[in-house]
Amino acid sequence: MKAILVLNAGSSSLKFALFATEPALAEQPALAGQIEGIGATPELSARDAAGKRYQEPVTTTGEQAEQHRDALTHLFRWLAAHNPDLEIVAAGHRVVHGGERYSAPVRLSEAVLRELDEFVPLAPLHQPHNLRAVRAVAALLPEIPQVGCFDTAFHRTQPALAQAFALPRAISAEGVKRYGFHGLSYDYVARQLPEVVGERASGAVVIAHLGNGASMCALRDGKSVASTMGFTAVEGLMMGTRTGSLDPGVLLYLMEQKGMDAKALTKLLYKESGLLGVSGISQDMRTLLASPAPEAKEAVDLFCYRIARELGSLAAAAGGLDALVFTGGIGEHAAPVRAKVAEMAAWLGVDIDVSANDAQQLRIDSADSRVAVAVVPTNEEGMIARYTMELLGR
Amino acid sequence: MKAILVLNAGSSSLKFALFATEPALAEQPALAGQIEGIGATPELSARDAAGKRYQEPVTTTGEQAEQHRDALTHLFRWLAAHNPDLEIVAAGHRVVHGGERYSAPVRLSEAVLRELDEFVPLAPLHQPHNLRAVRAVAALLPEIPQVGCFDTAFHRTQPALAQAFALPRAISAEGVKRYGFHGLSYDYVARQLPEVVGERASGAVVIAHLGNGASMCALRDGKSVASTMGFTAVEGLMMGTRTGSLDPGVLLYLMEQKGMDAKALTKLLYKESGLLGVSGISQDMRTLLASPAPEAKEAVDLFCYRIARELGSLAAAAGGLDALVFTGGIGEHAAPVRAKVAEMAAWLGVDIDVSANDAQQLRIDSADSRVAVAVVPTNEEGMIARYTMELLGR
Repeated sequence: MKAILVLNAGSSSLKFALFATEPALAEQPALAGQIEGIGATPELSARDAAGKRYQEPVTTTGEQAEQHRDALTHLFRWLAAHNPDLEIVAAGHRVVHGGERYSAPVRLSEAVLRELDEFVPLAPLHQPHNLRAVRAVAALLPEIPQVGCFDTAFHRTQPALAQAFALPRAISAEGVKRYGFHGLSYDYVARQLPEVVGERASGAVVIAHLGNGASMCALRDGKSVASTMGFTAVEGLMMGTRTGSLDPGVLLYLMEQKGMDAKALTKLLYKESGLLGVSGISQDMRTLLASPAPEAKEAVDLFCYRIARELGSLAAAAGGLDALVFTGGIGEHAAPVRAKVAEMAAWLGVDIDVSANDAQQLRIDSADSRVAVAVVPTNEEGMIARYTMELLGR
Repeated sequence: MKAILVLNAGSSSLKFALFATEPALAEQPALAGQIEGIGATPELSARDAAGKRYQEPVTTTGEQAEQHRDALTHLFRWLAAHNPDLEIVAAGHRVVHGGERYSAPVRLSEAVLRELDEFVPLAPLHQPHNLRAVRAVAALLPEIPQVGCFDTAFHRTQPALAQAFALPRAISAEGVKRYGFHGLSYDYVARQLPEVVGERASGAVVIAHLGNGASMCALRDGKSVASTMGFTAVEGLMMGTRTGSLDPGVLLYLMEQKGMDAKALTKLLYKESGLLGVSGISQDMRTLLASPAPEAKEAVDLFCYRIARELGSLAAAAGGLDALVFTGGIGEHAAPVRAKVAEMAAWLGVDIDVSANDAQQLRIDSADSRVAVAVVPTNEEGMIARYTMELLGR
């Protein structure tokens, strides 16, 4: 089997997916999984296209960089054992940050990697791990081409005003601007839209990518014109454990009145807030929707309210609203969230069909709705595979 | 002359306005001015209803608290000299923060002042000075009633969701929530609206208070349902020298990568950003509109863009848009700003009459506009005088 290997490397995890390329690039992976617990007790888990599950421990040694390389070595051996005729024709990597420079995927050479190293300060929690995996693959399988696919690239079409903060020019010039993320997901969904909403796809569209990380993107002619995530992945919508947008004065207050430093604030804003912080119960939307606790309802209501407010702001960026699209784990599966958002978006002409919504149909707008409303499953790994194919001209 | 004295006390300044109460409360002050430079070289400047200007040095002594009392003593003497028959019947104070407790003006007793002291951590730059002036008046003129009028009170009608941040419950319970400010201005303008936009005044209304400080408020049935300023006066719109809303991740970046502390960040966000920071030229809208520099245009364009985005978000909170109202120094006088915002709000049905806009007329919407668009001069001091009269039953 000829295949593209898609990799998404984090600090202690390595997600992978294998997409067959013949006869044509597969939409879904033949095999996907992850190695988790790198640096502690790493374990590989995977699932093939037939739903069969695999799990086994992974042995690593030495320093962190070596542990990641060991994990990759283990993965390659395991993939070969699982698929004796496997030929990895290319590797496609999720790379969180392409800065202002990259508006499309790029073939990864050492020169490009050195440029991407420059963006580490912009995404210190992700970028170093993404790039380390690229270098590890280059060392282990030097013959295969590698492609970097950026979470930021899709948003480079945004007008300068949508990317700007009202900071002094010198700070903006250093790269402190709104990059937007989840671009792989938005591009994947945007490419499906003509089939799902017809010519509205080239009008004013808002896509809500609602998962544990959540953001929204306004599109015009299929191109990003604004997004809720900005310089970092904490801005915008309320998320599983992240605050989303927050009066910067709150941070100054917590520093001055509570003596919190950057580390404590990072933990608070990224790990202890959002659905988890407001409910005090869980970061998991399923748990909250099933809970009778008023705190769970509060958290869900605030999550939906913030989506409805950002929807208005993004409609302003797009100059109206022809289609509203839900994707991501929550967007695809939480019918009550879609229903609440739709209710608060009635002023925009949104009206959903309750049974279509409950049945998770592709189109959930009612006959009276002035806005097309759709549920489109995202496929970020599939998008990376497709980018890789396209860039390599295969 | 019987009059209400309106006071707005800052750290080094004391603004005052004298409103005659007979035969009926005057809409405009008989005399208004300020003592500036308290703690340094204080000077009183004032202007009467006929436009005559006054200016004189003020002598203060001793510690800061005494300097403010000296300034007040000087003011009372000066007012008496200027108006030999003056009888101050009450003092109305602008008090920035009424916390969650105060949704209306309040007669200021020492017990109430002690409650208001509790809100000093929420507004450390303003609240202590506001309250010190109340106590100084109580010591100098113990017989006159005093009333506190809060910038936050008008927004206490907002639904809980509009006031909430997605922070852990314990932090929200301490009072870290969205209070909204400029409430005196919004209430004043809202009370004028039935005359200006008819029954639309009870529909979905957005008021843009655009001055050196700037914010917007969504109203439904004349009551605040959402606002752009939240916990502090730095959130929301881009302002003269303030950033407005900013990805909280930017603060974490500046702390970690640049070693900035709360003091440095406060200076950056409050004093060096906004129109001044983006243009690198001026914080003054008049200067920027007159400048041929592309940086000036960038700053003005970003200011307008952010208003247009927030307008969409606030329309979502109000459930639509029946009327859009401009007020504040920029809102009342900068026709090009109103025109740019209106252009970006065309998707909401906003259409302005260019010549009415250029002529600063009260109504500037065209015959085709689905939304009423108005320019209503604000009068925060007049609002404080009216609250004071109302509360004292005069």
